[in-house]
Amino acid sequence: MAEFGLRRAQGPAGGIYASYAAIVGGCSSTSNVAAGKRFNLPVSGTHAHSWIMAFDSELEAFRAYAKTFPHNCTLLVDTYDTLKGVANAIVVGQEMEQGGEQLAAIRIDSGDLAWLSKHARALLDEAGLTYVKIIASNDLDEYTISSLISEQGACIDGWGVGTKLATAFDQPALGCVYKMSAIREGADALWKPKLKISEQIHKSTLPGVLAVRRYIDNSGIMVGDMVYDLGALPVDDRIIDPSDDLRQKNLSAATHHDLLVPLIRKGKAAVPVPSAYESQETARASLAKLDSSNKRLLNSHTYPVGLESSLRATRDLLVRQARGLVYK
Amino acid sequence: MAEFGLRRAQGPAGGIYASYAAIVGGCSSTSNVAAGKRFNLPVSGTHAHSWIMAFDSELEAFRAYAKTFPHNCTLLVDTYDTLKGVANAIVVGQEMEQGGEQLAAIRIDSGDLAWLSKHARALLDEAGLTYVKIIASNDLDEYTISSLISEQGACIDGWGVGTKLATAFDQPALGCVYKMSAIREGADALWKPKLKISEQIHKSTLPGVLAVRRYIDNSGIMVGDMVYDLGALPVDDRIIDPSDDLRQKNLSAATHHDLLVPLIRKGKAAVPVPSAYESQETARASLAKLDSSNKRLLNSHTYPVGLESSLRATRDLLVRQARGLVYK
Repeated sequence: MAEFGLRRAQGPAGGIYASYAAIVGGCSSTSNVAAGKRFNLPVSGTHAHSWIMAFDSELEAFRAYAKTFPHNCTLLVDTYDTLKGVANAIVVGQEMEQGGEQLAAIRIDSGDLAWLSKHARALLDEAGLTYVKIIASNDLDEYTISSLISEQGACIDGWGVGTKLATAFDQPALGCVYKMSAIREGADALWKPKLKISEQIHKSTLPGVLAVRRYIDNSGIMVGDMVYDLGALPVDDRIIDPSDDLRQKNLSAATHHDLLVPLIRKGKAAVPVPSAYESQETARASLAKLDSSNKRLLNSHTYPVGLESSLRATRDLLVRQARGLVYK
Repeated sequence: MAEFGLRRAQGPAGGIYASYAAIVGGCSSTSNVAAGKRFNLPVSGTHAHSWIMAFDSELEAFRAYAKTFPHNCTLLVDTYDTLKGVANAIVVGQEMEQGGEQLAAIRIDSGDLAWLSKHARALLDEAGLTYVKIIASNDLDEYTISSLISEQGACIDGWGVGTKLATAFDQPALGCVYKMSAIREGADALWKPKLKISEQIHKSTLPGVLAVRRYIDNSGIMVGDMVYDLGALPVDDRIIDPSDDLRQKNLSAATHHDLLVPLIRKGKAAVPVPSAYESQETARASLAKLDSSNKRLLNSHTYPVGLESSLRATRDLLVRQARGLVYK
């Protein structure tokens, strides 16, 4: 999968970081040349429709592009009429063969991707161009791709995903807030836990110097995460009282590790900064530890995150204190 | 209305320009200090919940804030218990009166804004603080504000709007594309109109050097916009063939003006750059020319935009040519 979203990204910085994030999340390349240069990412793509429109004919435009990029030539075939575009691409592909080159791919960017890709595949194969790949794009997301693969039998070898990858399309604003959870008078003083409450107790914040611990079962699958207060008890003396979801899991055999680690100490990186590919590998390995029930597109389970028991008790006490229900 | 959206905006540049755009769109102030400095915009806001949480009591925190901002003091009353917060704000407001100052406002940022604002208003009025305004915030948008005003009788004097104003929440990516519409070989050559078509003719682009003309009826209300090709005919010799919507309007009495004007010529601003407030005034005047049927929240009419007749004819001819249905 290639990331194609720069033109729809949220501003220049949003475009640069969306491309980086797409590689971390598993994409094989980006069409964003600036991000490729900055983060050393593989860049791939095709010409624009305007390349075709700048010539008097599509065939002329394809020939000029193939001459310029003989080793990495992907032709966009849907400027005027997709199947006629495929026929023109076949002409150029056969000319490239005569020059000892190979057309890499065609790309379809509009219309019925399933129907067009099947007919394009048939035309390419009939012409002996069985090695030419078919790339699809056009407002793709995980649902459309999944349907094209598993329900529609599309003949598509690669996906260019733009808008839905480079923007936070289904969650346009991250609903998180920064709240104070503890305060101290100086570096040697004790932390005082703090919380903000609301009319609804379930919306109160969590007090303390917070950390998160992840439990992994003996098959290597994540069981759940526990939020706890680093300052409340020695770490090894902890009683686990996770959410109801978590309580049903057998944690006795689970191993655990802490998720929050210091990244910067005294203004310097406290851990080596990974490359985009090292981060991609970390993301892939982490996703592999997440149960498939949490990853499926339809009716996926919510991954359980619970509170450590003394943290929950402290939270409840501070809420009652703030409401004047307990003497301080 | 104050713009409060920086923390949810799309990156630093998105935050700066969202604040600027909010002022242009009619907001009276922003909480974004950097945007205020950069564009000379009025800045207003309140303290964070963490200001309250950093003190041992809410009353202490309110007193410290009032001492720091005696002339512009808005107290956020919902950190622990909103109506108790109002009571504490009243204590501080009365202390300010004794010192010859006035509490400007309280702000409610959670809970049932209608119910809380009515009770807060009653408490403030009973205490003689009838001049203290009530500001509301918390995921507000045009629908919630409209309901709070017209259905719920909320006692709210000012609105702080964040997420829904600083992000493109209901349209997370702008679905527009850049397409070539005309090309020429040199500055003295004639423009050749160009278009891209798709499987669906209604998705084809418009060919030519395009401009947009707006029609205003004799009551000063916009009738519709016409897209036309600057290069096709002398401007005064044009036949109007707008969309069906537009055809039903009486254009004979309508005046018109062109919307696209050059902003930059040879690298320099071709028109004076307006201030944010001049742009706000332009926006206000333009919105006043838009019929209320186009502006209402429920079942609003779509503002009509049509094609000039020769542009439509050229488009249709080029589509037929591209599909091989007409000899060139």
